[in-house]
Amino acid sequence: MSEISIFEELNPIFKPRTVAILGASGKEGKVGRMFMDRFLETGFEKLYPINPGADEVLGLKAYPSVKDVPDDVDFALIVLPPKAVLQAIRDCVDKGVKGVVINSAGFGEEGEAGEKIEQEMLKIAREGKTRLIGPNCIGIYCPSSRLPYPMRPGNQSGKVGVVSQSGSLADHLTLIATENGINFSKSVSCGNQCDLMAEDFLEYLGDDPETEIIVMYLEGSKNGERLYHLFKEISPRKPIIVWKTGTSEAGARAAASHTGALAGSVAVWEGVLQGGGIISVKSLEDILDTVYAFDKQPLPSGKRVAIITGPGGPAVGTTDTCIEMGLEVPRLSDATKEKLRKVMPPVGTSAENPIDLSLASVVTPNVYTDVVKVLGEDDAIDMIMVIGIGGDEFHRVILNAADGLTKPLVTAIIMPLESVVKDYKALMKGGVPVYPDPRRAANALARLSSYAGFLRDRQSA
Amino acid sequence: MSEISIFEELNPIFKPRTVAILGASGKEGKVGRMFMDRFLETGFEKLYPINPGADEVLGLKAYPSVKDVPDDVDFALIVLPPKAVLQAIRDCVDKGVKGVVINSAGFGEEGEAGEKIEQEMLKIAREGKTRLIGPNCIGIYCPSSRLPYPMRPGNQSGKVGVVSQSGSLADHLTLIATENGINFSKSVSCGNQCDLMAEDFLEYLGDDPETEIIVMYLEGSKNGERLYHLFKEISPRKPIIVWKTGTSEAGARAAASHTGALAGSVAVWEGVLQGGGIISVKSLEDILDTVYAFDKQPLPSGKRVAIITGPGGPAVGTTDTCIEMGLEVPRLSDATKEKLRKVMPPVGTSAENPIDLSLASVVTPNVYTDVVKVLGEDDAIDMIMVIGIGGDEFHRVILNAADGLTKPLVTAIIMPLESVVKDYKALMKGGVPVYPDPRRAANALARLSSYAGFLRDRQSA
Repeated sequence: MSEISIFEELNPIFKPRTVAILGASGKEGKVGRMFMDRFLETGFEKLYPINPGADEVLGLKAYPSVKDVPDDVDFALIVLPPKAVLQAIRDCVDKGVKGVVINSAGFGEEGEAGEKIEQEMLKIAREGKTRLIGPNCIGIYCPSSRLPYPMRPGNQSGKVGVVSQSGSLADHLTLIATENGINFSKSVSCGNQCDLMAEDFLEYLGDDPETEIIVMYLEGSKNGERLYHLFKEISPRKPIIVWKTGTSEAGARAAASHTGALAGSVAVWEGVLQGGGIISVKSLEDILDTVYAFDKQPLPSGKRVAIITGPGGPAVGTTDTCIEMGLEVPRLSDATKEKLRKVMPPVGTSAENPIDLSLASVVTPNVYTDVVKVLGEDDAIDMIMVIGIGGDEFHRVILNAADGLTKPLVTAIIMPLESVVKDYKALMKGGVPVYPDPRRAANALARLSSYAGFLRDRQSA
Repeated sequence: MSEISIFEELNPIFKPRTVAILGASGKEGKVGRMFMDRFLETGFEKLYPINPGADEVLGLKAYPSVKDVPDDVDFALIVLPPKAVLQAIRDCVDKGVKGVVINSAGFGEEGEAGEKIEQEMLKIAREGKTRLIGPNCIGIYCPSSRLPYPMRPGNQSGKVGVVSQSGSLADHLTLIATENGINFSKSVSCGNQCDLMAEDFLEYLGDDPETEIIVMYLEGSKNGERLYHLFKEISPRKPIIVWKTGTSEAGARAAASHTGALAGSVAVWEGVLQGGGIISVKSLEDILDTVYAFDKQPLPSGKRVAIITGPGGPAVGTTDTCIEMGLEVPRLSDATKEKLRKVMPPVGTSAENPIDLSLASVVTPNVYTDVVKVLGEDDAIDMIMVIGIGGDEFHRVILNAADGLTKPLVTAIIMPLESVVKDYKALMKGGVPVYPDPRRAANALARLSSYAGFLRDRQSA
């Protein structure tokens, strides 16, 4: 196995020609039914249901064992009761299946007896060339090869790759982000990692030409040193957004019972995460906020933010927040202020940074476009944040402003939930990240800026 | 003035029998029209439009000057161009108006010349007994007396009182919170504070029997010592949630041009805010998240949280977050675990804290109710957080769970924006705070816990 790279070994598993579902079922409420439905929805073609008690499942011919399938099987999904899993793996190895996702749970996360069964799984796999993913996971989502996830994130391929030790987290992340116009190259839930580990998938995504941004959810690592070196090696090429949990004692206990992970101490992890260029986040919301910016916007050339606000209230607090997060909110040059005054009404507005448009933002919303364009041409400004109250006109003028802009632009809309849904759809799908609070917009800009700074420091070193 | 309390002096201004609008207009797009519309919408009865160029405004008889109104005027709102403001104030003083809101801007926030005019305003007011609010503010929202705010937060009275140096922030805050089932006793935007200051309104709300929770947005204080003493005096009776901005140099500059505030140094403010029991927050979202918990939930008896989750993914990270925020996520007693096992399906669930319901949460959602009830009876648990994926059944079982519960319960729903709108309406209106991320739910619990701890420490001291 040492002759071929992880990428060469794993890519056929992410891009299978054929899939077998061991435990496929037509019965509502069964996990085997849910996965059948998902594969049929994405339109995966060569799907083989395996079920010794059925001749067909949802209109497809079923086979008693994966060994009976009259075709090569590249990828198998096991959704069987725990007791049946070892035999199923043995069958897959005998069949020469390249990758097996063990969805079934009830192993290492339950304690020592389960860990022993996982060791047995690995031993069986090593007798052939089969690689295992899981157990206790939802496997692989890969829109370009039509591998589905339970919550239906869809078939649109994108540039974000995910490795997650939690299946439900990966599932929610891809669903929510997809609804906001972010698409994924791959997402993999590695569960208890009896064979393939988060590090393997990280290395794979690092080499994957379809993946430009990497997201990791980690509860622990069985090989911190390898992880550290992969971070160092990949982060100069692709931003890696990491949420490491299990850092508290109670959290580590929860991690052990969730995916059987050894969480490791906070201090060790701080070292690993600060190694270089890693974007360390603290919640699912934080992952999403950060991904929106990296997926949709360029990296800034520096730390200098211009804040443009309709409602005057958030200007002061947003300025503080930017500074707190390591950004700068510089005074504008006289030349820029003069240009701004030409496009802004003279009364009730301020051409100082933060730029206060006040009522003009409502009466003549095009002023947003004009002001962004002026700042887009100012070399002393690296990033732009617009704060507004949304509405159809707001989308229009912001998307106009974004057209041709070469520096990061993010928006914050401070309005009740119901009234922002339409704004989110329009702005996110149009490529402008939008947040419900300027603090979160500032956080996203700070993350872009910090990663861009890491790249600049490397180049100048 | 020293014989009567601030409460006695200001309450008639918050509860006026009659209101005059100086600058009232029927013309669309005018601020004087907008405020007329708002007063007519809330159904304020004794409304007198003042406009020397009109006989009537929107069907109401108009008067050339406030002095011509054939009735006492308790409350006046000035929406005139800056040049006309001094004379208008003079007229109000002559008329014996109790409180005057100066909505007009273009004074102290523009520099020294404007500050001088503000001193003149105060001098005129002091010639009578008229008190001034503003300039550069939106004045008072008081649903019980039908004083409106521009964005229409509605007529429902509640227990949250707001003092804000920013009008738009107060306006957005009350609108968003109202949409989420939070109602207000009063909200006052004090703008440039040429006469009445944030401290005066804080003292007023401290004595106001309609106000149980106080929110302050501050860009600076002209009397930090008084503020500090008011915080100390009021916080043992009512929680005070404070967002202090203008703490960075750039932020202080922005504050000066926004409301003419002197922001003061970070160090001084840290001292003031740490004085005792103050809940210091960092964004509008943070204010809202915190208010939801204080408005809808009781204070906890201690720091111990039980986390109940449907999707397993957030359990580990939420545990870490609770610990990071000063809460505890204790192991459950054998007795409680036994009770939990009686109500939870045996397979795929975990009766350890965090409690993982996994698929059972979808298949038999009533398990949420049963589990919360068990934890409600456990004296070793002080607060409960439920993490779910929403839906009609989810509301129902959570609202059932909340029924009769005497400890704080909050929820987090990790789903795309569109699919949570209905959940938010149902849960918030039913009295259970809901957040889009467990980190924010944890933050809200930590705030409740920290304030409860402050009260306990005082009692035992």
